[in-house]
Amino acid sequence: MNEQVKNVLITRVTSDGESTVRDQLAVEDPLEIQVIYSSATGKMKKNIAITMRTPGHDENLAAGFLFTEGVIAADAIAGFSCGMDRNRIIVELKENIVPNFHNSERNFYSSSSCGICGKASIESTQLNTGFRTDPDTILLNRELIHGLPLKLRSMQDVFDNTGGIHACGLFNLEGNCIGIREDVGRHNALDKLIGANLDRLPLAAHILLLSGRASFELLQKAAMAGIRIVVAVGAPSSLAVELAEENGITLIGFLRENRFNVYAGKERIS
Amino acid sequence: MNEQVKNVLITRVTSDGESTVRDQLAVEDPLEIQVIYSSATGKMKKNIAITMRTPGHDENLAAGFLFTEGVIAADAIAGFSCGMDRNRIIVELKENIVPNFHNSERNFYSSSSCGICGKASIESTQLNTGFRTDPDTILLNRELIHGLPLKLRSMQDVFDNTGGIHACGLFNLEGNCIGIREDVGRHNALDKLIGANLDRLPLAAHILLLSGRASFELLQKAAMAGIRIVVAVGAPSSLAVELAEENGITLIGFLRENRFNVYAGKERIS
Repeated sequence: MNEQVKNVLITRVTSDGESTVRDQLAVEDPLEIQVIYSSATGKMKKNIAITMRTPGHDENLAAGFLFTEGVIAADAIAGFSCGMDRNRIIVELKENIVPNFHNSERNFYSSSSCGICGKASIESTQLNTGFRTDPDTILLNRELIHGLPLKLRSMQDVFDNTGGIHACGLFNLEGNCIGIREDVGRHNALDKLIGANLDRLPLAAHILLLSGRASFELLQKAAMAGIRIVVAVGAPSSLAVELAEENGITLIGFLRENRFNVYAGKERIS
Repeated sequence: MNEQVKNVLITRVTSDGESTVRDQLAVEDPLEIQVIYSSATGKMKKNIAITMRTPGHDENLAAGFLFTEGVIAADAIAGFSCGMDRNRIIVELKENIVPNFHNSERNFYSSSSCGICGKASIESTQLNTGFRTDPDTILLNRELIHGLPLKLRSMQDVFDNTGGIHACGLFNLEGNCIGIREDVGRHNALDKLIGANLDRLPLAAHILLLSGRASFELLQKAAMAGIRIVVAVGAPSSLAVELAEENGITLIGFLRENRFNVYAGKERIS
Protein backbone atom coordinates (compact mmCIF):
# COMPACT_ATOMS: atom_id res chain seq x y z
CA MET A 1 0.00 0.00 0.00
CA ASN A 2 1.73 3.20 1.13
CA GLU A 3 3.45 4.64 4.16
CA GLN A 4 0.18 6.09 5.50
CA VAL A 5 -1.40 2.69 5.95
CA LYS A 6 -0.19 -0.40 7.76
CA ASN A 7 -1.52 -3.84 6.89
CA VAL A 8 -2.27 -6.07 9.85
CA LEU A 9 -4.09 -9.27 10.71
CA ILE A 10 -6.86 -8.79 13.23
CA THR A 11 -9.59 -10.86 14.83
CA ARG A 12 -13.07 -9.77 13.76
CA VAL A 13 -15.80 -10.77 16.19
CA THR A 14 -19.40 -10.79 14.98
CA SER A 15 -22.59 -12.51 16.02
CA ASP A 16 -21.59 -15.33 13.66
CA GLY A 17 -18.33 -15.97 15.47
CA GLU A 18 -14.79 -14.82 14.97
CA SER A 19 -12.41 -14.80 12.04
CA THR A 20 -8.90 -13.64 11.27
CA VAL A 21 -8.97 -10.99 8.56
CA ARG A 22 -6.62 -8.50 6.96
CA ASP A 23 -7.17 -4.91 8.03
CA GLN A 24 -5.51 -1.56 7.55
CA LEU A 25 -4.48 0.92 10.22
CA ALA A 26 -3.74 4.59 9.84
CA VAL A 27 -0.04 4.96 10.56
CA GLU A 28 0.91 7.13 13.53
CA ASP A 29 4.62 7.89 13.81
CA PRO A 30 6.69 10.63 15.46
CA LEU A 31 8.09 13.46 13.34
CA GLU A 32 10.80 15.64 14.80
CA ILE A 33 10.89 19.15 13.37
CA GLN A 34 14.22 20.99 13.48
CA VAL A 35 15.07 24.45 12.22
CA ILE A 36 18.42 25.68 10.87
CA TYR A 37 18.86 29.45 10.84
CA SER A 38 21.70 31.93 10.67
CA SER A 39 22.87 33.84 13.72
CA ALA A 40 25.76 36.17 14.53
CA THR A 41 27.85 33.12 15.35
CA GLY A 42 26.98 31.08 12.28
CA LYS A 43 24.37 28.45 11.46
CA MET A 44 22.27 27.33 14.41
CA LYS A 45 20.09 24.23 14.67
CA LYS A 46 17.17 24.02 17.08
CA ASN A 47 14.73 21.24 17.87
CA ILE A 48 11.26 22.71 17.62
CA ALA A 49 8.73 19.94 18.13
CA ILE A 50 7.95 16.29 17.93
CA THR A 51 4.47 15.56 16.70
CA MET A 52 2.74 12.22 16.24
CA ARG A 53 1.66 12.29 12.62
CA THR A 54 0.69 10.11 9.71
CA PRO A 55 3.70 10.06 7.36
CA GLY A 56 3.37 11.91 4.06
CA HIS A 57 3.49 15.60 3.18
CA ASP A 58 6.00 16.08 5.98
CA GLU A 59 7.38 19.22 4.35
CA ASN A 60 3.89 20.69 4.28
CA LEU A 61 3.42 19.72 7.90
CA ALA A 62 6.67 21.30 9.06
CA ALA A 63 6.07 24.49 7.07
CA GLY A 64 2.46 24.80 8.15
CA PHE A 65 3.27 24.10 11.76
CA LEU A 66 6.05 26.69 11.91
CA PHE A 67 3.84 29.27 10.21
CA THR A 68 0.60 28.69 12.12
CA GLU A 69 2.46 28.64 15.44
CA GLY A 70 3.97 32.02 14.63
CA VAL A 71 7.58 30.82 14.51
CA ILE A 72 8.22 31.99 10.93
CA ALA A 73 6.62 34.04 8.16
CA ALA A 74 5.13 32.31 5.15
CA ASP A 75 8.12 33.05 2.91
CA ALA A 76 10.93 32.27 5.36
CA ILE A 77 11.86 28.76 4.22
CA ALA A 78 14.88 28.08 2.02
CA GLY A 79 14.56 24.32 1.88
CA PHE A 80 14.01 20.99 3.59
CA SER A 81 16.16 17.97 4.31
CA CYS A 82 15.71 14.81 6.32
CA GLY A 83 18.92 12.83 6.03
CA MET A 84 18.46 9.11 6.55
CA ASP A 85 15.73 9.47 9.14
CA ARG A 86 12.22 9.46 7.78
CA ASN A 87 10.94 10.62 11.15
CA ARG A 88 12.94 13.84 11.17
CA ILE A 89 12.64 16.91 8.99
CA ILE A 90 15.08 19.80 8.99
CA VAL A 91 13.76 23.16 7.83
CA GLU A 92 16.45 25.56 6.66
CA LEU A 93 15.47 29.21 6.80
CA LYS A 94 16.60 31.89 4.39
CA GLU A 95 19.58 34.11 5.30
CA ASN A 96 18.84 36.76 7.92
CA ILE A 97 15.53 35.20 8.95
CA VAL A 98 15.18 35.17 12.73
CA PRO A 99 12.63 32.62 13.91
CA ASN A 100 10.35 33.65 16.75
CA PHE A 101 11.04 30.96 19.30
CA HIS A 102 9.11 32.90 21.88
CA ASN A 103 5.93 31.92 20.09
CA SER A 104 7.00 28.33 19.81
CA GLU A 105 7.98 28.12 23.45
CA ARG A 106 4.62 29.46 24.44
CA ASN A 107 3.22 26.30 22.93
CA PHE A 108 5.79 23.79 24.08
CA TYR A 109 4.98 24.88 27.55
CA SER A 110 1.70 23.15 26.99
CA SER A 111 0.98 19.48 26.91
CA SER A 112 -2.15 19.65 24.86
CA SER A 113 -2.49 19.80 21.12
CA CYS A 114 -4.24 23.08 21.60
CA GLY A 115 -2.75 24.17 24.84
CA ILE A 116 -2.35 27.86 24.91
CA CYS A 117 -4.10 30.36 27.04
CA GLY A 118 -7.28 31.22 25.25
CA LYS A 119 -7.52 34.93 25.68
CA ALA A 120 -3.84 35.66 25.26
CA SER A 121 -3.82 33.54 22.21
CA ILE A 122 -6.80 35.15 20.55
CA GLU A 123 -4.96 38.43 20.83
CA SER A 124 -1.66 37.03 19.62
CA THR A 125 -3.39 35.46 16.65
CA GLN A 126 -4.63 38.84 15.55
CA LEU A 127 -1.22 40.36 16.09
CA ASN A 128 0.60 37.66 14.23
CA THR A 129 -1.40 37.17 11.11
CA GLY A 130 -0.72 40.62 9.74
CA PHE A 131 -3.75 40.17 7.48
CA ARG A 132 -6.22 43.01 7.64
CA THR A 133 -9.71 41.79 8.20
CA ASP A 134 -11.37 44.23 5.82
CA PRO A 135 -15.07 43.84 5.29
CA ASP A 136 -15.66 41.48 2.41
CA THR A 137 -18.61 40.66 0.20
CA ILE A 138 -18.34 36.88 0.27
CA LEU A 139 -21.76 35.28 -0.09
CA LEU A 140 -22.15 31.51 -0.19
CA ASN A 141 -25.32 29.68 -1.04
CA ARG A 142 -26.32 26.78 1.09
CA GLU A 143 -26.33 24.21 -1.72
CA LEU A 144 -22.64 24.83 -2.25
CA ILE A 145 -22.01 24.18 1.44
CA HIS A 146 -24.09 21.01 1.49
CA GLY A 147 -22.03 19.64 -1.37
CA LEU A 148 -18.65 19.99 0.32
CA PRO A 149 -18.42 16.82 2.46
CA LEU A 150 -19.09 14.52 -0.47
CA LYS A 151 -16.33 16.22 -2.44
CA LEU A 152 -13.93 15.85 0.49
CA ARG A 153 -14.82 12.24 1.01
CA SER A 154 -14.37 11.37 -2.65
CA MET A 155 -10.80 12.66 -2.48
CA GLN A 156 -9.88 10.99 0.80
CA ASP A 157 -7.36 8.20 0.30
CA VAL A 158 -6.65 6.93 3.74
CA PHE A 159 -9.99 7.13 5.49
CA ASP A 160 -11.62 4.63 3.18
CA ASN A 161 -8.99 2.12 4.17
CA THR A 162 -8.70 2.73 7.86
CA GLY A 163 -11.71 4.68 9.09
CA GLY A 164 -9.35 6.32 11.52
CA ILE A 165 -8.11 9.58 10.15
CA HIS A 166 -8.96 13.26 10.05
CA ALA A 167 -9.15 15.20 6.82
CA CYS A 168 -9.42 18.83 5.90
CA GLY A 169 -10.01 20.35 2.53
CA LEU A 170 -9.56 23.77 1.00
CA PHE A 171 -12.19 24.91 -1.49
CA ASN A 172 -12.55 28.06 -3.54
CA LEU A 173 -15.75 30.10 -3.40
CA GLU A 174 -17.16 28.14 -6.34
CA GLY A 175 -16.87 24.98 -4.26
CA ASN A 176 -13.97 23.47 -6.19
CA CYS A 177 -11.44 21.56 -4.10
CA ILE A 178 -7.98 23.13 -4.09
CA GLY A 179 -6.38 20.56 -1.85
CA ILE A 180 -6.92 17.99 0.85
CA ARG A 181 -4.70 16.58 3.58
CA GLU A 182 -5.21 13.71 6.00
CA ASP A 183 -3.63 12.79 9.33
CA VAL A 184 -4.35 10.92 12.55
CA GLY A 185 -4.02 14.34 14.22
CA ARG A 186 -6.50 16.94 13.05
CA HIS A 187 -4.07 19.75 13.86
CA ASN A 188 -1.50 18.03 11.66
CA ALA A 189 -3.98 17.67 8.80
CA LEU A 190 -4.62 21.40 8.91
CA ASP A 191 -0.93 22.27 9.22
CA LYS A 192 -0.25 20.14 6.14
CA LEU A 193 -3.03 21.86 4.21
CA ILE A 194 -1.91 25.36 5.15
CA GLY A 195 1.74 24.43 4.63
CA ALA A 196 0.90 23.33 1.09
CA ASN A 197 -0.68 26.71 0.39
CA LEU A 198 1.74 29.15 2.01
CA ASP A 199 2.40 30.77 -1.38
CA ARG A 200 -1.19 31.91 -1.73
CA LEU A 201 -1.81 33.51 1.67
CA PRO A 202 -4.04 35.02 2.87
CA LEU A 203 -6.64 32.38 2.04
CA ALA A 204 -9.49 34.85 2.45
CA ALA A 205 -11.40 33.72 -0.64
CA HIS A 206 -11.45 30.09 0.39
CA ILE A 207 -13.51 27.69 2.45
CA LEU A 208 -11.90 25.34 4.96
CA LEU A 209 -13.76 22.07 5.54
CA LEU A 210 -12.95 20.01 8.64
CA SER A 211 -14.00 16.36 8.80
CA GLY A 212 -14.47 16.44 12.56
CA ARG A 213 -15.04 18.92 15.34
CA ALA A 214 -13.89 22.52 15.39
CA SER A 215 -11.62 23.30 18.33
CA PHE A 216 -10.00 26.54 19.36
CA GLU A 217 -6.68 25.35 17.99
CA LEU A 218 -8.03 24.70 14.51
CA LEU A 219 -9.75 28.07 14.35
CA GLN A 220 -6.53 29.71 15.45
CA LYS A 221 -4.58 28.05 12.66
CA ALA A 222 -7.27 29.03 10.15
CA ALA A 223 -7.11 32.63 11.37
CA MET A 224 -3.33 32.63 10.96
CA ALA A 225 -3.83 31.68 7.30
CA GLY A 226 -6.44 34.41 6.80
CA ILE A 227 -9.25 31.92 6.19
CA ARG A 228 -12.70 33.48 6.63
CA ILE A 229 -15.03 30.51 6.25
CA VAL A 230 -14.64 27.35 8.34
CA VAL A 231 -17.11 24.50 7.91
CA ALA A 232 -17.00 21.53 10.27
CA VAL A 233 -18.86 18.24 10.05
CA GLY A 234 -18.76 18.05 13.85
CA ALA A 235 -19.47 20.39 16.74
CA PRO A 236 -17.52 23.53 17.59
CA SER A 237 -16.29 24.29 21.09
CA SER A 238 -17.19 27.46 22.96
CA LEU A 239 -13.76 28.98 22.46
CA ALA A 240 -13.73 28.14 18.76
CA VAL A 241 -16.91 30.18 18.37
CA GLU A 242 -15.44 33.08 20.34
CA LEU A 243 -12.29 33.09 18.25
CA ALA A 244 -14.35 32.98 15.05
CA GLU A 245 -16.37 35.97 16.20
CA GLU A 246 -13.30 37.98 17.16
CA ASN A 247 -11.58 37.25 13.86
CA GLY A 248 -14.58 37.80 11.59
CA ILE A 249 -14.67 34.14 10.59
CA THR A 250 -17.87 32.44 9.47
CA LEU A 251 -18.10 29.20 11.45
CA ILE A 252 -20.49 26.44 10.42
CA GLY A 253 -20.89 23.19 12.35
CA PHE A 254 -22.86 19.94 12.23
CA LEU A 255 -22.92 19.99 8.45
CA ARG A 256 -25.30 17.27 7.26
CA GLU A 257 -26.91 16.46 3.94
CA ASN A 258 -29.65 19.03 4.23
CA ARG A 259 -28.88 21.17 7.25
CA PHE A 260 -26.15 22.94 9.16
CA ASN A 261 -25.69 25.36 12.05
CA VAL A 262 -24.10 28.80 11.75
CA TYR A 263 -22.23 29.80 14.90
CA ALA A 264 -20.60 33.02 13.72
CA GLY A 265 -20.52 35.26 10.65
CA LYS A 266 -23.87 34.29 9.20
CA GLU A 267 -23.87 37.35 6.93
CA ARG A 268 -21.81 35.36 4.44
CA ILE A 269 -24.56 32.73 3.98
CA SER A 270 -27.26 33.60 1.46
CA MET B 1 -26.95 24.73 32.99
CA ASN B 2 -23.41 24.15 34.24
CA GLU B 3 -19.89 25.30 33.56
CA GLN B 4 -19.33 22.51 31.02
CA VAL B 5 -21.96 23.85 28.67
CA LYS B 6 -22.41 27.31 27.18
CA ASN B 7 -25.80 28.47 25.92
CA VAL B 8 -25.74 30.36 22.64
CA LEU B 9 -28.08 31.55 19.92
CA ILE B 10 -27.25 30.09 16.52
CA THR B 11 -28.71 30.12 13.03
CA ARG B 12 -29.98 26.72 11.96
CA VAL B 13 -30.21 26.29 8.20
CA THR B 14 -32.37 23.49 6.82
CA SER B 15 -34.13 22.79 3.53
CA ASP B 16 -37.12 24.64 4.99
CA GLY B 17 -35.16 27.84 5.55
CA GLU B 18 -33.33 29.31 8.47
CA SER B 19 -34.20 30.01 12.07
CA THR B 20 -32.55 31.38 15.17
CA VAL B 21 -32.47 28.75 17.89
CA ARG B 22 -30.88 28.18 21.26
CA ASP B 23 -28.02 25.73 21.23
CA GLN B 24 -25.42 24.45 23.65
CA LEU B 25 -21.69 24.29 23.13
CA ALA B 26 -19.14 22.19 24.98
CA VAL B 27 -17.01 24.67 26.90
CA GLU B 28 -13.32 24.75 26.02
CA ASP B 29 -11.17 26.82 28.38
CA PRO B 30 -7.50 26.89 29.33
CA LEU B 31 -6.38 25.30 32.59
CA GLU B 32 -2.95 26.11 33.92
CA ILE B 33 -1.44 23.37 36.08
CA GLN B 34 1.16 24.43 38.65
CA VAL B 35 3.04 22.29 41.15
CA ILE B 36 4.32 23.31 44.58
CA TYR B 37 7.02 21.08 46.03
CA SER B 38 9.70 21.26 48.71
CA SER B 39 13.34 21.69 47.82
CA ALA B 40 16.55 22.33 49.75
CA THR B 41 15.84 26.05 49.56
CA GLY B 42 12.19 25.91 50.60
CA LYS B 43 8.89 25.65 48.77
CA MET B 44 9.15 25.90 44.98
CA LYS B 45 6.37 26.57 42.49
CA LYS B 46 6.61 25.48 38.87
CA ASN B 47 4.28 25.95 35.91
CA ILE B 48 3.78 22.55 34.35
CA ALA B 49 1.25 22.84 31.55
CA ILE B 50 -1.65 24.72 30.09
CA THR B 51 -4.26 22.48 28.56
CA MET B 52 -7.48 23.40 26.77
CA ARG B 53 -10.10 21.53 28.71
CA THR B 54 -13.78 21.43 29.54
CA PRO B 55 -14.13 22.78 33.10
CA GLY B 56 -15.08 20.32 35.80
CA HIS B 57 -13.09 17.65 37.65
CA ASP B 58 -10.04 19.88 37.37
CA GLU B 59 -8.41 18.21 40.36
CA ASN B 60 -8.80 14.83 38.66
CA LEU B 61 -7.38 16.29 35.47
CA ALA B 62 -4.31 17.76 37.17
CA ALA B 63 -3.65 14.61 39.18
CA GLY B 64 -4.18 12.30 36.24
CA PHE B 65 -2.05 14.43 33.94
CA LEU B 66 0.86 14.61 36.38
CA PHE B 67 0.68 10.87 36.99
CA THR B 68 0.24 9.64 33.41
CA GLU B 69 3.00 11.95 32.19
CA GLY B 70 5.36 10.47 34.75
CA VAL B 71 5.87 13.66 36.75
CA ILE B 72 4.68 12.22 40.06
CA ALA B 73 3.73 8.92 41.65
CA ALA B 74 0.09 8.14 42.34
CA ASP B 75 0.34 8.98 46.05
CA ALA B 76 2.43 12.17 45.82
CA ILE B 77 -0.31 14.79 46.17
CA ALA B 78 -0.99 16.58 49.45
CA GLY B 79 -3.74 18.87 48.19
CA PHE B 80 -5.13 21.27 45.61
CA SER B 81 -5.88 24.98 45.52
CA CYS B 82 -6.94 27.39 42.83
CA GLY B 83 -7.22 30.80 44.45
CA MET B 84 -9.58 33.14 42.63
CA ASP B 85 -8.76 31.83 39.18
CA ARG B 86 -10.99 29.05 37.94
CA ASN B 87 -8.56 28.46 35.09
CA ARG B 88 -5.61 27.64 37.32
CA ILE B 89 -5.02 24.72 39.63
CA ILE B 90 -2.12 24.43 42.04
CA VAL B 91 -1.09 20.93 43.07
CA GLU B 92 0.83 20.77 46.33
CA LEU B 93 3.02 17.71 46.72
CA LYS B 94 3.76 15.93 49.98
CA GLU B 95 6.96 16.75 51.86
CA ASN B 96 10.11 15.27 50.33
CA ILE B 97 8.43 14.38 47.05
CA VAL B 98 10.65 15.32 44.12
CA PRO B 99 8.67 15.68 40.88
CA ASN B 100 10.27 14.31 37.73
CA PHE B 101 10.31 17.37 35.51
CA HIS B 102 12.50 15.57 33.03
CA ASN B 103 9.48 13.55 32.00
CA SER B 104 7.28 16.60 31.79
CA GLU B 105 9.81 18.52 29.74
CA ARG B 106 10.06 15.65 27.32
CA ASN B 107 6.43 16.33 26.56
CA PHE B 108 6.40 20.10 26.59
CA TYR B 109 9.02 19.92 23.92
CA SER B 110 6.21 18.70 21.74
CA SER B 111 3.35 20.63 20.29
CA SER B 112 1.01 17.74 19.82
CA SER B 113 -1.33 16.23 22.30
CA CYS B 114 0.52 13.03 21.88
CA GLY B 115 3.85 14.33 20.77
CA ILE B 116 6.56 12.19 22.12
CA CYS B 117 8.91 9.97 20.29
CA GLY B 118 7.12 6.68 19.79
CA LYS B 119 9.82 4.15 20.46
CA ALA B 120 11.48 6.02 23.30
CA SER B 121 8.13 6.53 24.84
CA ILE B 122 7.02 2.94 24.63
CA GLU B 123 10.13 2.04 26.57
CA SER B 124 9.73 4.82 29.11
CA THR B 125 6.13 3.80 29.69
CA GLN B 126 7.24 0.36 30.70
CA LEU B 127 9.93 1.80 32.91
CA ASN B 128 7.65 4.28 34.56
CA THR B 129 4.60 2.27 35.39
CA GLY B 130 6.33 0.01 37.84
CA PHE B 131 3.44 -2.43 37.48
CA ARG B 132 4.48 -5.96 36.69
CA THR B 133 2.66 -7.34 33.71
CA ASP B 134 2.17 -10.80 35.13
CA PRO B 135 0.12 -13.23 33.08
CA ASP B 136 -3.50 -12.91 34.08
CA THR B 137 -6.56 -15.02 33.58
CA ILE B 138 -8.98 -12.28 32.53
CA LEU B 139 -11.61 -13.64 30.15
CA LEU B 140 -14.39 -11.40 28.84
CA ASN B 141 -17.38 -12.59 26.91
CA ARG B 142 -18.41 -10.65 23.87
CA GLU B 143 -21.91 -9.80 25.12
CA LEU B 144 -20.38 -7.86 27.99
CA ILE B 145 -18.25 -5.88 25.54
CA HIS B 146 -21.19 -5.15 23.24
CA GLY B 147 -23.11 -3.69 26.15
CA LEU B 148 -20.47 -1.14 27.17
CA PRO B 149 -21.22 1.81 24.80
CA LEU B 150 -24.85 2.00 25.81
CA LYS B 151 -23.87 2.10 29.46
CA LEU B 152 -21.35 4.87 28.77
CA ARG B 153 -23.82 6.85 26.72
CA SER B 154 -26.51 6.64 29.37
CA MET B 155 -24.14 8.24 31.87
CA GLN B 156 -22.85 10.99 29.57
CA ASP B 157 -24.07 14.40 30.66
CA VAL B 158 -22.50 16.79 28.25
CA PHE B 159 -22.57 14.92 24.97
CA ASP B 160 -26.34 14.81 24.85
CA ASN B 161 -26.38 18.57 25.01
CA THR B 162 -23.55 19.47 22.71
CA GLY B 163 -22.63 16.50 20.55
CA GLY B 164 -19.11 17.75 20.82
CA ILE B 165 -17.29 15.98 23.54
CA HIS B 166 -15.20 12.90 24.20
CA ALA B 167 -15.97 10.49 26.99
CA CYS B 168 -14.19 7.60 28.59
CA GLY B 169 -15.50 5.14 31.10
CA LEU B 170 -13.98 2.68 33.52
CA PHE B 171 -15.78 -0.64 34.02
CA ASN B 172 -15.07 -3.61 36.22
CA LEU B 173 -14.85 -7.10 34.75
CA GLU B 174 -18.55 -7.65 35.38
CA GLY B 175 -19.28 -4.69 33.09
CA ASN B 176 -20.38 -2.31 35.84
CA CYS B 177 -19.41 1.30 35.33
CA ILE B 178 -16.98 2.60 37.98
CA GLY B 179 -16.70 6.10 36.59
CA ILE B 180 -16.94 8.30 33.53
CA ARG B 181 -15.32 11.58 32.53
CA GLU B 182 -15.95 13.91 29.60
CA ASP B 183 -13.88 16.61 27.91
CA VAL B 184 -13.39 18.34 24.57
CA GLY B 185 -9.92 16.78 24.62
CA ARG B 186 -9.87 13.01 24.71
CA HIS B 187 -6.52 13.01 26.51
CA ASN B 188 -8.07 15.24 29.18
CA ALA B 189 -11.07 12.93 29.56
CA LEU B 190 -8.72 10.03 30.21
CA ASP B 191 -6.50 12.03 32.57
CA LYS B 192 -9.61 12.98 34.55
CA LEU B 193 -10.73 9.35 34.73
CA ILE B 194 -7.34 8.06 35.82
CA GLY B 195 -6.89 10.98 38.20
CA ALA B 196 -10.17 10.06 39.87
CA ASN B 197 -8.94 6.51 40.41
CA LEU B 198 -5.34 7.00 41.52
CA ASP B 199 -6.10 5.33 44.85
CA ARG B 200 -6.95 2.02 43.20
CA LEU B 201 -3.99 1.59 40.87
CA PRO B 202 -3.07 -0.56 39.06
CA LEU B 203 -6.39 -0.81 37.21
CA ALA B 204 -5.56 -4.27 35.88
CA ALA B 205 -8.97 -5.77 36.59
CA HIS B 206 -10.81 -3.04 34.69
CA ILE B 207 -11.96 -2.18 31.20
CA LEU B 208 -11.35 1.26 29.70
CA LEU B 209 -13.92 2.37 27.12
CA LEU B 210 -13.06 5.24 24.76
CA SER B 211 -15.85 7.04 22.86
CA GLY B 212 -13.61 7.81 19.90
CA ARG B 213 -10.42 6.60 18.30
CA ALA B 214 -7.50 4.99 20.12
CA SER B 215 -4.26 6.90 19.64
CA PHE B 216 -0.79 6.14 20.90
CA GLU B 217 -1.17 8.76 23.61
CA LEU B 218 -4.32 7.21 25.07
CA LEU B 219 -2.80 3.74 25.12
CA GLN B 220 0.25 5.17 26.83
CA LYS B 221 -1.86 6.74 29.57
CA ALA B 222 -3.80 3.49 29.97
CA ALA B 223 -0.55 1.57 30.30
CA MET B 224 0.65 4.00 32.96
CA ALA B 225 -2.46 3.17 34.98
CA GLY B 226 -1.94 -0.57 34.55
CA ILE B 227 -5.10 -1.00 32.46
CA ARG B 228 -5.11 -4.25 30.46
CA ILE B 229 -8.27 -3.95 28.38
CA VAL B 230 -8.96 -0.92 26.17
CA VAL B 231 -12.10 -0.81 24.06
CA ALA B 232 -12.59 1.99 21.51
CA VAL B 233 -15.67 2.87 19.51
CA GLY B 234 -13.39 4.22 16.77
CA ALA B 235 -10.27 3.05 14.98
CA PRO B 236 -6.85 2.53 16.55
CA SER B 237 -3.68 3.92 15.04
CA SER B 238 -0.72 1.74 14.10
CA LEU B 239 1.33 2.92 17.07
CA ALA B 240 -1.55 2.36 19.48
CA VAL B 241 -1.64 -1.28 18.40
CA GLU B 242 2.12 -1.63 18.79
CA LEU B 243 2.04 -0.15 22.26
CA ALA B 244 -0.84 -2.44 23.22
CA GLU B 245 1.13 -5.47 22.05
CA GLU B 246 4.29 -4.45 23.89
CA ASN B 247 2.39 -3.81 27.12
CA GLY B 248 0.19 -6.89 27.02
CA ILE B 249 -2.97 -4.82 26.60
CA THR B 250 -6.06 -6.18 24.88
CA LEU B 251 -7.10 -3.54 22.33
CA ILE B 252 -10.54 -3.62 20.74
CA GLY B 253 -11.69 -1.12 18.11
CA PHE B 254 -14.72 -0.32 15.96
CA LEU B 255 -17.06 -1.52 18.65
CA ARG B 256 -20.59 -1.70 17.20
CA GLU B 257 -23.81 -3.26 18.35
CA ASN B 258 -22.98 -6.73 17.16
CA ARG B 259 -19.34 -6.73 16.13
CA PHE B 260 -15.88 -5.48 17.02
CA ASN B 261 -12.27 -5.94 15.98
CA VAL B 262 -9.53 -7.23 18.25
CA TYR B 263 -6.14 -5.70 17.46
CA ALA B 264 -4.08 -7.11 20.29
CA GLY B 265 -4.44 -9.48 23.23
CA LYS B 266 -7.31 -11.56 21.87
CA GLU B 267 -6.64 -14.31 24.43
CA ARG B 268 -8.75 -12.34 26.91
CA ILE B 269 -11.88 -12.58 24.72
CA SER B 270 -13.91 -15.75 25.08
